[in-house]
Amino acid sequence: MLSQEENDLLCCTGPGTPMGNLFRRFWLPVALSRELPKPDCPPVRMRILSEDLIAFRNTNGKVGLLSRYCPHRGASLFFGRNEEGGLRCVYHGWKFDTTGVCIDMPNEPAECSFKHKIRQTAYPTREAGGVIWAYMGPQEIMPELPELEWTLVPQNHVYVHKRFQHCNYLQNVEGEVDSSHVSFLHREFRPEKFNAAIAGQVLLAQAKDTAPKFLVQETEYGLTIGARRNWDADQYYWRVTKFLMPSFTLIPSEAGSPINFTAAVPVDDKNMVGFTVTWLPDRPLADNDISTIESWTGAYAEVDPKTFEPIASRANDHLLDREKQRTENFTGMRGIREQDIAVQEDQFGGPVTDRTKEHLGTSDTGVITLRRRLLNSVRNFQQGQEPPEPRKATAYRVRPIADIAYRNLSLDEVLDSGDLDLARSEV
Amino acid sequence: MLSQEENDLLCCTGPGTPMGNLFRRFWLPVALSRELPKPDCPPVRMRILSEDLIAFRNTNGKVGLLSRYCPHRGASLFFGRNEEGGLRCVYHGWKFDTTGVCIDMPNEPAECSFKHKIRQTAYPTREAGGVIWAYMGPQEIMPELPELEWTLVPQNHVYVHKRFQHCNYLQNVEGEVDSSHVSFLHREFRPEKFNAAIAGQVLLAQAKDTAPKFLVQETEYGLTIGARRNWDADQYYWRVTKFLMPSFTLIPSEAGSPINFTAAVPVDDKNMVGFTVTWLPDRPLADNDISTIESWTGAYAEVDPKTFEPIASRANDHLLDREKQRTENFTGMRGIREQDIAVQEDQFGGPVTDRTKEHLGTSDTGVITLRRRLLNSVRNFQQGQEPPEPRKATAYRVRPIADIAYRNLSLDEVLDSGDLDLARSEV
Amino acid sequence: MLSQEENDLLCCTGPGTPMGNLFRRFWLPVALSRELPKPDCPPVRMRILSEDLIAFRNTNGKVGLLSRYCPHRGASLFFGRNEEGGLRCVYHGWKFDTTGVCIDMPNEPAECSFKHKIRQTAYPTREAGGVIWAYMGPQEIMPELPELEWTLVPQNHVYVHKRFQHCNYLQNVEGEVDSSHVSFLHREFRPEKFNAAIAGQVLLAQAKDTAPKFLVQETEYGLTIGARRNWDADQYYWRVTKFLMPSFTLIPSEAGSPINFTAAVPVDDKNMVGFTVTWLPDRPLADNDISTIESWTGAYAEVDPKTFEPIASRANDHLLDREKQRTENFTGMRGIREQDIAVQEDQFGGPVTDRTKEHLGTSDTGVITLRRRLLNSVRNFQQGQEPPEPRKATAYRVRPIADIAYRNLSLDEVLDSGDLDLARSEV
Repeated sequence: MLSQEENDLLCCTGPGTPMGNLFRRFWLPVALSRELPKPDCPPVRMRILSEDLIAFRNTNGKVGLLSRYCPHRGASLFFGRNEEGGLRCVYHGWKFDTTGVCIDMPNEPAECSFKHKIRQTAYPTREAGGVIWAYMGPQEIMPELPELEWTLVPQNHVYVHKRFQHCNYLQNVEGEVDSSHVSFLHREFRPEKFNAAIAGQVLLAQAKDTAPKFLVQETEYGLTIGARRNWDADQYYWRVTKFLMPSFTLIPSEAGSPINFTAAVPVDDKNMVGFTVTWLPDRPLADNDISTIESWTGAYAEVDPKTFEPIASRANDHLLDREKQRTENFTGMRGIREQDIAVQEDQFGGPVTDRTKEHLGTSDTGVITLRRRLLNSVRNFQQGQEPPEPRKATAYRVRPIADIAYRNLSLDEVLDSGDLDLARSEV
Repeated sequence: MLSQEENDLLCCTGPGTPMGNLFRRFWLPVALSRELPKPDCPPVRMRILSEDLIAFRNTNGKVGLLSRYCPHRGASLFFGRNEEGGLRCVYHGWKFDTTGVCIDMPNEPAECSFKHKIRQTAYPTREAGGVIWAYMGPQEIMPELPELEWTLVPQNHVYVHKRFQHCNYLQNVEGEVDSSHVSFLHREFRPEKFNAAIAGQVLLAQAKDTAPKFLVQETEYGLTIGARRNWDADQYYWRVTKFLMPSFTLIPSEAGSPINFTAAVPVDDKNMVGFTVTWLPDRPLADNDISTIESWTGAYAEVDPKTFEPIASRANDHLLDREKQRTENFTGMRGIREQDIAVQEDQFGGPVTDRTKEHLGTSDTGVITLRRRLLNSVRNFQQGQEPPEPRKATAYRVRPIADIAYRNLSLDEVLDSGDLDLARSEV
Repeated sequence: MLSQEENDLLCCTGPGTPMGNLFRRFWLPVALSRELPKPDCPPVRMRILSEDLIAFRNTNGKVGLLSRYCPHRGASLFFGRNEEGGLRCVYHGWKFDTTGVCIDMPNEPAECSFKHKIRQTAYPTREAGGVIWAYMGPQEIMPELPELEWTLVPQNHVYVHKRFQHCNYLQNVEGEVDSSHVSFLHREFRPEKFNAAIAGQVLLAQAKDTAPKFLVQETEYGLTIGARRNWDADQYYWRVTKFLMPSFTLIPSEAGSPINFTAAVPVDDKNMVGFTVTWLPDRPLADNDISTIESWTGAYAEVDPKTFEPIASRANDHLLDREKQRTENFTGMRGIREQDIAVQEDQFGGPVTDRTKEHLGTSDTGVITLRRRLLNSVRNFQQGQEPPEPRKATAYRVRPIADIAYRNLSLDEVLDSGDLDLARSEV
């Protein structure tokens, strides 16, 4: 439970808000590279942190990210012509390069110097791991891209996916760090029909212990969140999730299985865009890895390929099937992600949940720790302290872990026993 | 015409409002029993008096009515599993019985006492006459169910129906007590094609006297509203409508014809759910009684059987047919209820009509008296006086009447001549 | 660029606003005559200057324009019966004539005088040029209809058309007086495929000079806005647009081609209704003139014939075709009007553009002058000075011009050389 002030502080990310400014210290995934498939292709609209933007890939293949409206008289650059090294407004022909410089102003006399006074807001971009990243903060302190493993391995080791979700970003991040709900929301009644990729979770869901004990450590990139369940008389089943500032998570899989990354990026305070990534450190994804993903029963929601809107939505009650709920799984909804979206989009009736009404227990330790981590960060930041995490690009070289371990091992020992920390292994 | 303050006082029924609190002293129809057809069937969402609720029928057949969002972290109980004596949240498995007690909390350690501190808001329910009733007020003063005749006769004497209507509840109640509009809004140009059930109204519509004189009496349950029209040199045609607190009406039919009850229950200030009931005191409804009802030409609007939304709606201009309006009836719309909905949903442009703009005449005496009755009730209530009507369960044993009577009879004598007051007859 | 105060002053036209009151000093087009095709036909809803209205043509063919809601209890007169010299409310039968007088009140006793106290708001109307005009201001200063040429020539010389547009009226008027954007937004890559009616604009679009010089004169009806481009060593190409208070324009065509009029009438602050008129002074429109218009490639947007909503809309990205944009024209959208609507409905993200964010150059002289003219008018009006333009009906007898002229001619001489000013020629 939070106070209303705390809830607002964490949830509001528009221009000028404390959390909005904090987000603007980090590189954020904003689109898939394949949305801009080639030089001079059509521009793409987006809204990030309550700012209306337009992305385009110029003639040289570089991605520009500009404020969406022409500074002349506000025409939408979505209608713009993307050609010969810039995006040209269709209203009066003003043309901008990827840095926001006005490189042509054909409706004014050739000798006119007005053009040099115009500068459209533009944000630096990078591409890595099949994703377009943007940095929307002060240029003078722009950090390096975080060295997430999936941005470093060959591209054929990686599957990336985007979806819109109609709730505040934090509801999604809270779901990611909450191992506790897996025993319920994602419980499967027919494990033999379940696909291999989430076998561990099925195992877990079947486990008798639905009340995990949480052990959490603060780290230089965010949090290590260990959820420990009784496995047998001698062993525990551990799920160790990584939270990476400002809104990323690494979700554990069994050793050797593909690993999952997620990012929750605010569109505005009531909407978010979610990126999910699956990768294998050691080999390309095989056809059956991909067909498993595209069965949409796991961490991926099926989306409309043009709009990235989930097929199962609030408007259709997330395709809840009551007969399926009786006989096949806990919710009567198809996939893990689709189940998550269903609950996250309607907590206490709103896209922004009212955390003053909550009743939290010991199983919410992951969620509570996450909020405290974020509140500390944003309050330090309000008092003038720049967040340290963006300067730690290499610290993001970590992995999550799911494993069975003897009961006498501490969280640290479990972490050491796995190849959890890439900083200690070779990537 | 009301002042803005008076209009707000009557129309606003959310939690904490004076009228909202007054409504919460009464048992209210909230759903049809058949919406929860059997034990452990899917739960049903509803919104009543601006509160989001979930109704479910438990394993024993008892109906629970809870606040819709789980007190843990706000997941919607609409997604819940209804099984083994309670409704279980799919997010973390918390389970509630019909009284709001948390009877299982499987995500916390078994020894944990947290569960005993949790109590979900729950409202008592009853079932009578095919309707689920709820009481949303203080438990210590919970009254008996009102003894409406249709809740006491055998179920096969009764037809019950529900519809949503997109306006404030009061616009609908005003229509019910306003006999005057029947001569216009419901006028039929081809009485021979009109069905028998509303023959009296047709008779009336054909009558020369379109300016009824209203005689109103205050009663212990609400109001008796007599509308008297000239019939011939010696007789009057009387329509005596009953208004029953807080928002129920009994609409007259000719002696021996089925009788109609209506209730207008606020969903929120801009929407309502309407219940219409037809019953026969003395015999089961026959097939042709039901086919008359289901011709949707009378007091019943055709609705989508899943959503209870009227087929004729504001979006399709209530299926107004201008040719039909020229040749068949006054509005060009099919049924009496559909005609009522059309005008009620758009009075002075809004779902909440602006009563400061009205110009009322003598024909509005029924409406004026209704408002005064409600204003007196809510003002007394604001000054600490509990409404007396909920304590008068037996006083609701009344009927309306439509009849022709000699001109020398007073309203009281007309009432005595009919079997209007069930308290004086045997039920 | 305007201050926020100036922007609000120009854009807000509801009842009681300064600009709203100024608009109410002028006759305004509000509907097409053919929307009320015959006596006693169905009434038509409209919203003008944020007022909800109902128009009807009575038994004698006269058009009434009333407030939409019955003064009795607010039922919508849209449902009304239009018959025998008036519009009758279906709720209780009150009937109004075109002047708002209540001519029948059948729900009250015949002897009752209440009817004489009721007066529905009614606005005078006129019909001219196939358009219904309304005057919504003080009766005692009602002016004559402006003597626009197309309202004076035979009806078969004229084509009139209506569309809704979802932006503030001023965005549309600014587009009309801005000759500069024609070189871009309306540029055609295949002039040979372009139809004759806009050959001049094609010529222009092809012209090397995309940076016209603006010369503007204030006139008694509004503004003369000359846009002068280099044509060859000796000559200029002139486009002289007329702005007529409060929101009308005359758009130039080559001599002998049909002439275009437009009006932007506020529905409310975020929506407008646009009227476009094409006429020939000297002969009826031929079939090919009309088929040119109805190719919807020029100043006319294709609309749904029932709703007058453009087929190309914000919801479908104005049917933007990126391949067409690459090979056929500048925008990838079909027609000139459709291109205009696309940019006007989304300036700085809103239906009301934020003019504080603009960067205006010399090519915006037309727009700047228009705003200054309107600001002066409304500020004088705020200080008690009635606008002079409505009293100048004959001053509206003007034409626009597009022509090539020797460089030594001034704007005045160009105007004299053309038959621009009807006041100097015979109509």
